[in-house]
Amino acid sequence: MSEPFRVVFAIYPRLTQLDFTGPFEILARLPGAETIVASRDGGAIRSDTGLEIGATRKLAEIERCDLICVPGGPGVEAASVDPVFLAELKRLASGARYVTSVCNGSLILGAAGLLKGKRAACHWAWRDLLPTFGAIPVADRVVRDGNIITGGGVTAGIDFALTVMADIAGEQIARAIQLSVEYAPAPPFDSGTPESAGAETTGLVTARMTSRKESFVRAHAASAAAE
Amino acid sequence: MSEPFRVVFAIYPRLTQLDFTGPFEILARLPGAETIVASRDGGAIRSDTGLEIGATRKLAEIERCDLICVPGGPGVEAASVDPVFLAELKRLASGARYVTSVCNGSLILGAAGLLKGKRAACHWAWRDLLPTFGAIPVADRVVRDGNIITGGGVTAGIDFALTVMADIAGEQIARAIQLSVEYAPAPPFDSGTPESAGAETTGLVTARMTSRKESFVRAHAASAAAE
Repeated sequence: MSEPFRVVFAIYPRLTQLDFTGPFEILARLPGAETIVASRDGGAIRSDTGLEIGATRKLAEIERCDLICVPGGPGVEAASVDPVFLAELKRLASGARYVTSVCNGSLILGAAGLLKGKRAACHWAWRDLLPTFGAIPVADRVVRDGNIITGGGVTAGIDFALTVMADIAGEQIARAIQLSVEYAPAPPFDSGTPESAGAETTGLVTARMTSRKESFVRAHAASAAAE
Repeated sequence: MSEPFRVVFAIYPRLTQLDFTGPFEILARLPGAETIVASRDGGAIRSDTGLEIGATRKLAEIERCDLICVPGGPGVEAASVDPVFLAELKRLASGARYVTSVCNGSLILGAAGLLKGKRAACHWAWRDLLPTFGAIPVADRVVRDGNIITGGGVTAGIDFALTVMADIAGEQIARAIQLSVEYAPAPPFDSGTPESAGAETTGLVTARMTSRKESFVRAHAASAAAE
């Protein structure tokens, strides 16, 4: 018997749950996969919207993985300055075939030192912060640079996961999984990017993120100064 | 202060977690919403792919809601013949402004007697079973019949939730939430429906569902005979 393909989702408090549950649904359908949800301390983790993900394993207890995926969310600020969490990510990433993120989870990969000189995706409103960690922002839904595959904001995680699935298992299996989750999207509005949403709607969304972004920048300026 | 708009997701063991986590991510962003995840017995619920949703509340302890949403998954078979679960759904649905489902969750609404003579969506592979409960199958991603709004398979839950959001809060808020989750889908393949996937891929997926569908039909034939 061959070893299962081990996928680890590294989550943390106040993540955006769909960043992780979207790809989880796809990658858990990989034939022969072992899908593990893990966090720094193990146990229950609450999303920014109050969803509780139970029974996560402790990152330090996971010896290795084939794919590591880091989602985004408001909790990125704390996670990206948590030395224990970052050290576990670096350790698992060093042995992984794929190092991945969804949404502004790429900022955590960056903070772990994994994106230096690498092209990466991010949530549109947070993408401009990638250079903080030496990464090159790319405005695509899925970006690949070597063994690093990053997805854009939240729902891009589904496109990301199907892309990764085709790479791991071939297009035929990815297409069957796409059909099994009936992924023939038909958004009722055309408002998924700042360009299509227009200035007014974009302003509404960015206004709610300004203070969080400023706080993130301050935290990383402080940690850069401390190095 | 006005009462919060209360959304209840009624979940059960072996649900398909993305059926519920997709709409949860959207509906939890409704300004003034209270989003509750509940199950028959409360506590932790495991999805068909092994994701644990923690700390669900007990359906019987929830007095009322404005919107009830029932996801689908392999657990539909057991849930749709569970008299306690179905009775709680009927009770909450009777006072709700919206009665909704995603994927083959519509078969549970049907089993609860809520779809008689109603047009409804369902996962493509399970849609033909809707007439078991007097419902009229419609091959759309989002179907509305009065206060009943049903979504198609798994990922259709995101399109469903944005449609419901526009109805509750107006198009401007729905468009801002769409932008916040960067929902500008770009599937890497065109394989989300049996028509686009083609006969071979569709055959792969339906083959895995045949025995579950047969078992579902037998269970409901038995419960119909017992009535």
